[in-house]
Amino acid sequence: MLYFANDYSTGAHPEVLKALLETNGDKLPGYGEDRLCGIAKEKIRRACGCPEAEVFFLMGGTQTNSVALSALLKGYEGVIAAETGHIGVHEAGAVESGGHKVITLPGREGKLDCAVLREWLEGFYGDESRDHMVFPGAVYISQPTEYGTIYSLGELESLSAICREYSMTLYMDGARLGYALVSPAADAGLEDIARLCGAFYIGGTKVGALCGEALVFPKGAPEHFFTTVKQKGALPAKGRLFGAQFDALFTDGLYLRISRHVMDMTERLKRVLTARGFSFYIDSPTNQQFILIENDRLERLTKSVALTLWEKPDADHSVVRFAADWSTMPEDIEALDAILAEL
Amino acid sequence: MLYFANDYSTGAHPEVLKALLETNGDKLPGYGEDRLCGIAKEKIRRACGCPEAEVFFLMGGTQTNSVALSALLKGYEGVIAAETGHIGVHEAGAVESGGHKVITLPGREGKLDCAVLREWLEGFYGDESRDHMVFPGAVYISQPTEYGTIYSLGELESLSAICREYSMTLYMDGARLGYALVSPAADAGLEDIARLCGAFYIGGTKVGALCGEALVFPKGAPEHFFTTVKQKGALPAKGRLFGAQFDALFTDGLYLRISRHVMDMTERLKRVLTARGFSFYIDSPTNQQFILIENDRLERLTKSVALTLWEKPDADHSVVRFAADWSTMPEDIEALDAILAEL
Amino acid sequence: MLYFANDYSTGAHPEVLKALLETNGDKLPGYGEDRLCGIAKEKIRRACGCPEAEVFFLMGGTQTNSVALSALLKGYEGVIAAETGHIGVHEAGAVESGGHKVITLPGREGKLDCAVLREWLEGFYGDESRDHMVFPGAVYISQPTEYGTIYSLGELESLSAICREYSMTLYMDGARLGYALVSPAADAGLEDIARLCGAFYIGGTKVGALCGEALVFPKGAPEHFFTTVKQKGALPAKGRLFGAQFDALFTDGLYLRISRHVMDMTERLKRVLTARGFSFYIDSPTNQQFILIENDRLERLTKSVALTLWEKPDADHSVVRFAADWSTMPEDIEALDAILAEL
Amino acid sequence: MLYFANDYSTGAHPEVLKALLETNGDKLPGYGEDRLCGIAKEKIRRACGCPEAEVFFLMGGTQTNSVALSALLKGYEGVIAAETGHIGVHEAGAVESGGHKVITLPGREGKLDCAVLREWLEGFYGDESRDHMVFPGAVYISQPTEYGTIYSLGELESLSAICREYSMTLYMDGARLGYALVSPAADAGLEDIARLCGAFYIGGTKVGALCGEALVFPKGAPEHFFTTVKQKGALPAKGRLFGAQFDALFTDGLYLRISRHVMDMTERLKRVLTARGFSFYIDSPTNQQFILIENDRLERLTKSVALTLWEKPDADHSVVRFAADWSTMPEDIEALDAILAEL
Repeated sequence: MLYFANDYSTGAHPEVLKALLETNGDKLPGYGEDRLCGIAKEKIRRACGCPEAEVFFLMGGTQTNSVALSALLKGYEGVIAAETGHIGVHEAGAVESGGHKVITLPGREGKLDCAVLREWLEGFYGDESRDHMVFPGAVYISQPTEYGTIYSLGELESLSAICREYSMTLYMDGARLGYALVSPAADAGLEDIARLCGAFYIGGTKVGALCGEALVFPKGAPEHFFTTVKQKGALPAKGRLFGAQFDALFTDGLYLRISRHVMDMTERLKRVLTARGFSFYIDSPTNQQFILIENDRLERLTKSVALTLWEKPDADHSVVRFAADWSTMPEDIEALDAILAEL
Repeated sequence: MLYFANDYSTGAHPEVLKALLETNGDKLPGYGEDRLCGIAKEKIRRACGCPEAEVFFLMGGTQTNSVALSALLKGYEGVIAAETGHIGVHEAGAVESGGHKVITLPGREGKLDCAVLREWLEGFYGDESRDHMVFPGAVYISQPTEYGTIYSLGELESLSAICREYSMTLYMDGARLGYALVSPAADAGLEDIARLCGAFYIGGTKVGALCGEALVFPKGAPEHFFTTVKQKGALPAKGRLFGAQFDALFTDGLYLRISRHVMDMTERLKRVLTARGFSFYIDSPTNQQFILIENDRLERLTKSVALTLWEKPDADHSVVRFAADWSTMPEDIEALDAILAEL
Repeated sequence: MLYFANDYSTGAHPEVLKALLETNGDKLPGYGEDRLCGIAKEKIRRACGCPEAEVFFLMGGTQTNSVALSALLKGYEGVIAAETGHIGVHEAGAVESGGHKVITLPGREGKLDCAVLREWLEGFYGDESRDHMVFPGAVYISQPTEYGTIYSLGELESLSAICREYSMTLYMDGARLGYALVSPAADAGLEDIARLCGAFYIGGTKVGALCGEALVFPKGAPEHFFTTVKQKGALPAKGRLFGAQFDALFTDGLYLRISRHVMDMTERLKRVLTARGFSFYIDSPTNQQFILIENDRLERLTKSVALTLWEKPDADHSVVRFAADWSTMPEDIEALDAILAEL
Repeated sequence: MLYFANDYSTGAHPEVLKALLETNGDKLPGYGEDRLCGIAKEKIRRACGCPEAEVFFLMGGTQTNSVALSALLKGYEGVIAAETGHIGVHEAGAVESGGHKVITLPGREGKLDCAVLREWLEGFYGDESRDHMVFPGAVYISQPTEYGTIYSLGELESLSAICREYSMTLYMDGARLGYALVSPAADAGLEDIARLCGAFYIGGTKVGALCGEALVFPKGAPEHFFTTVKQKGALPAKGRLFGAQFDALFTDGLYLRISRHVMDMTERLKRVLTARGFSFYIDSPTNQQFILIENDRLERLTKSVALTLWEKPDADHSVVRFAADWSTMPEDIEALDAILAEL
C-alpha cells in the first residue's frame, strides 16, 4: 500500500528519533525546565531573529491554538478566521469550549482576504449595537492554509497592519509551517513572521516530529502563560520529549531540510499527476495536493494507494488529497506513477 | 549527581523506547485509530479483566483528570477530593477552568476517609438549601496518593458503594498506579479497580513511558468521548506515540515488572535511610518516601543528591521526597548510602 | 417625540403593574418558591395544554437562551441557528461563553429553512471527519424572527420532525411570541409550540412586562435545572417579581390581549406607511416593520420620531425599524401620519 | 404568621415602588442607557465621594459576584474567600462555572482575617511549585458577612493594603451593605469602601428594592464591561427597572433611612430576645440575628413565626436566623414578644 493520505502517518524523522534516543538516559528536571528545552528555545529564537521571543512547546495543533487564544483573548473577545480555518471546522469547538466565538469570514482558497477583513471591521465598528456583539480580539490565519495555499509577505504585512490598527493579535497556525517557508511560491521567512505576528507556532508533528509544536510569542508571552499551559492540561511532566525533538529540528537546519525534501517529493508528485492528466482542484504550492477524480477511478486507485477524501463536488467526482511527508521517497512517486499508468 | 528528585526525570524504559523505534517507520492512521493503539487497548482490557471497557490514551495526568471529569460531570456538579488531592492543589485550577468546583474534604495522609465522605454527603443531602449548592457528581481519589499511601481493597469497596448509593462516579487518578499494584501493602489489583471505579487511569509517564496515560472506562465511556478529547486539545495526530508505548508496557507484564523493580529499589532505599537514622514523615508503601531532615544536613546533602523539598514543618527542619523510578539501580542506593555516611 | 424605536421603551402594562402593587406587601418565600410563581406556572401549563410542563422564570432573553442551551447541550454539542439568529449576533457571544458553538446556516428573512437544515445534517453525518467537529445538539429558532417573520405550523412540524430524527432539541426564542401567536399570518398556537418544541420561552419583557421570560420545558426540565439557574446568576431572591407579572399576563388572556392590541396598532401603522408611499424591506406579519427610506428624509423624520436604524443597503438609503408596543395608541399612529404628510 | 425568615420576603419599599409607578409611562432607551439609570449612577458616585467611579446595575448577588469576578480575574487566577463566604457556599458554583477557583481560608464568624490571609499569601509565593497552582487575583469579602458581622475600617484598610501589595482586587459583596453602614458597630462609610475596594456592590434586593444591585468600580470598570454584562445574560432590555429603583434609593437618603429603620427594629428584636432569655450564637451587629434554641421550643415557635434554620449544633438544639427588613414594624416585634412569652 502506498501512503499519501496525510503527513502524520509515519513516526519521527531519524535525526529526531536519534535525539530522543541519545538523551533518553539523561536525568533532567521536569515540566520543560530542562536543558534540552532551553537549548531548543534558544535555537528557535535565533531562527526567528527574535532574541526576546518566548517559546513554549505544546503537544498538537488544536491544543496550541486553543491554549494560546484563551490567553490572548479577553472574555468579551472572539477570533476572526476564514470559514475554512481549522479552528472553526475541525477542532471540535475547542475555541468555543474555552468561551470564545470564532467569527468566520468568507475566504478564498483557504485564505483570509485583507479587503474582506477590513470591510468587516469597518462594519463592526460602525454598527451602533456593537456593544451587544463579540469584539474581535485576534485574527487567526494558517500558513499554509488548510488548502495548501500560502500568504505572501505583502499579504502578511497588510494583515499585520490591520491588526495593529484595530488592536488585535495576528495569530498564525503553522501546523505545516516548514512547507510554507520553503515553497517556491514563498517570500515570507521566519523572521518576517516573527516580526508580523503576535503569536504563531512552528509545527513539529507534521514536519518530522513524533509530536510537539513550538508556540512563539515574539514580543513576550501573556503573563503567567506557563500556568495557563498547566491549567489547560498541556504541560507534560517529561518536557524533554519536546526539547529533544525541537533541538534536533533546529540543529543543522533539519526543519528546513525536511521541508525541502517534502517539497521536492511534492514537485515530483505534481509532475506525475499532471502527466497522467489529472486536474488540480486548487493550485497549492505546499505539500498538500488536491485532485479532482472520477469516483470509479478513485475506487480502483484506493485499492493500492491511501488517500484522503476531501470533498464531493458532484455525484460522479471526488476531490482527494495527496500529502507527502519526510518519509516519502522518489520510489514512492515512481510506484504511484506506475499505478496511475494502469488505472 | 545522584537523582532521587522525582520519577519523571529519565526518558522511557528501554523496552518502551524499543517499541517506538521498531514501529517508527510503519504507516499508520492518525488520531489513535491505528493498529498499535488497538492492540494496546485490547491488552489493557484483558489486564483489567474487563472486555467491555473503553480505553483512551491521553498525554499527562492533569489533562486526563480534567478531560475525564468534564465529560463525567454535569454542569451543576462538582467533584469531591481530599484536601491534598492533586486536582485541588497542583493542577492550576484545571477542573475549575472546565467549570466545576473541587469540593475538598479533610484527608488522612492523602486519603479520603469513607466516614468523612459519608458524613459530608448526609450533611449535604440533609441541607435544605442544597439546591443552591454544587452537587457532588464524582469522587476523586489518587492511588497511590500524593503522599504515597494506598487505599486497601476494603476501602475501595466502601468508597465504591457510597458512590453507587449517591449516584456519583468513583474516579481514580493512577499517575503512579503500578506502584500501588505491586506494593507489599497492596491488596487491590487492576481487576478490582476496574470493578469498583467508574473511570480510572493507568499512569504511563511515571512508570516507564515517555508520556501517556491510559484512561479506562470499565463500563463504557461518556458518549462521543473521542470528540471531547479532541475538543480539549488532547488528541495528538500521531496517536501511535501512545499505542506503541502502552503496547510495550502491557507486553510480558512490563508495567508490573517496572513497578516491582522500582519497589525493590524503594525497599533498599528505606533500609538505607532507616539504618542512617532518618525518620519517615509518613509511612509510605510506594515509591515516594518522605524524610524529615535538619536544614543544614539537607543543604550538604543536596550538593550531591537531587531531592524535592516537600514541606517545612518548622524553622530548622524540612521534609524532603526521595523517589525511585525505572532507571534507579542498586548502585544508586549504594552511592547514596556512602554519601549519607559522610553527612 | 413619537416613539416607535422598539418594544421595550415603556414600563409595564397597567394590569401587570397593578399585580406588582397589590402583592407588594405579601410575605412570600424567596427564589421563586412563592405562591404567585406557582399560580403563574400553572396558568402557563394550562395555556400550553401541557400539564406536565416545567416552567422557570428568568430575567431576559439572552439569559434565558444561554442558560437553557447550556443545560440542554452536552459539552461536545453546539446549536444550529440561522445566520441572523439573535444568539449568534446580538448576545455578545453568550452561548460561546458557556462553551458551545453556534453553528450558523443561511436563513431566509430570518428563518431557518428545513431543506437547508436537512442538507447540512446529511452533510455532517456523511462527513468522515465528523468526530473532529461540533455535533449539533439543538436547533435554535426565534418566533417571530429578528425580521418579524414567523414560522408556519407546517414548518414547525417539519423542523420538529428533523430534530427528533437527529436527536436534537428544538428550542424556540419567543422574545415576542405573543405577536406570532395573534398575527393574521399565524397558524401555530401555544399548544402546537409546546407539542413541537423541546424548550421555548414566552417573552414577557417585550409583551407588557417590566422584565421576565417564562421558559417552558413541555416534557420536563433538565435535571436540577433550578441549580443551573442559580449557578448562572439567573435566580432573583424576590422571584415574586416574575410570579406576579406572569400571573397577571396569564389572567383573563392579558398576554393575548396585549398582543392583539399591538398587532392592531401595527396594522394601522402599515396602512399609514403604505398610504404614504413607503416600501417595506421585508413583509413582516408581526410588530416589527422594516421600511426603506432615503437618508435625507430619515434625518428629517427622526427629529420628531424615534426609530431604530437597521441597515444601510446603499449610500443614499436606510432601512429603519418601526415597532409598536402595548403603550402605542391610535393617536400615536395619527400623529405619525401627520408628520409623514409633512415630510 | 409573623415573618422574620429573611430580608427578601416583602416587595419594594413604598418610595421605591412609587418611583417605578411614576416613571412607568416614560419612553426611555433600553439596556440601561436611560435617563433614570444616568441619574441613579450619578447619585451613587456622589454618595461614594468618587466622581470617576463606574456604576452598573445587575439583578442579584450571585450574578453580580460572578460577572464582576469573571471580568476582574485573569484566566489563571482565582479568588480568595473565607470558608463561609457566599460565593463558595450558596452560589451553586457560579464562580467555578466561569472558570475560576474559590480559594477558601478559615474565617472567624464569617470574616477573613488579615493575618491568616497574609500567612497564606506568604506561603503561596514562597512555594516553589506555585506556577502549578491557582494564582490569587482577588479577595472576596462580604460586608456584613453571612453571619451578620462587619469589618471595621481598620480591618478594611489592612485588607486593602495587602491586596495592593499582592496585586489583587479587593472585592466586597454588599448584599446587605446598608446595615453595615448604619450599624452601631460600624466605622467604615461608603467613601471609605470606595477608597479601599477595587469593586463592590451596594445591595438593593435586601435593602428595599424589588431587585437590583449597584456594582461600583471606584477606579473605573474593566474594559468593555457593558459587553461582559450582556454576554453573561445580565443586561435587561428595560434597564429603567434598576434606574428608577436606585434613583429612589439614593434620593433623600432613602437607602440609609431604610437601613436605619431596619436596625432600629433589630435593636428592639435583640432586646426582646435577650429579655426572654435567649442566647445569641453570634454577636451580630446587623439585621441578621442568630439564636440558639431547643428543638421542641423551636417547633412550637415556628407554628406562628417564620424563621430560617441555620445550623444544628447538636441533636437537641438549633440555630435559627431572625431577620428584619424594611417592612418590619414595632408591632411585629411586640407580637413576637407576646408569642415568646407564651412559648
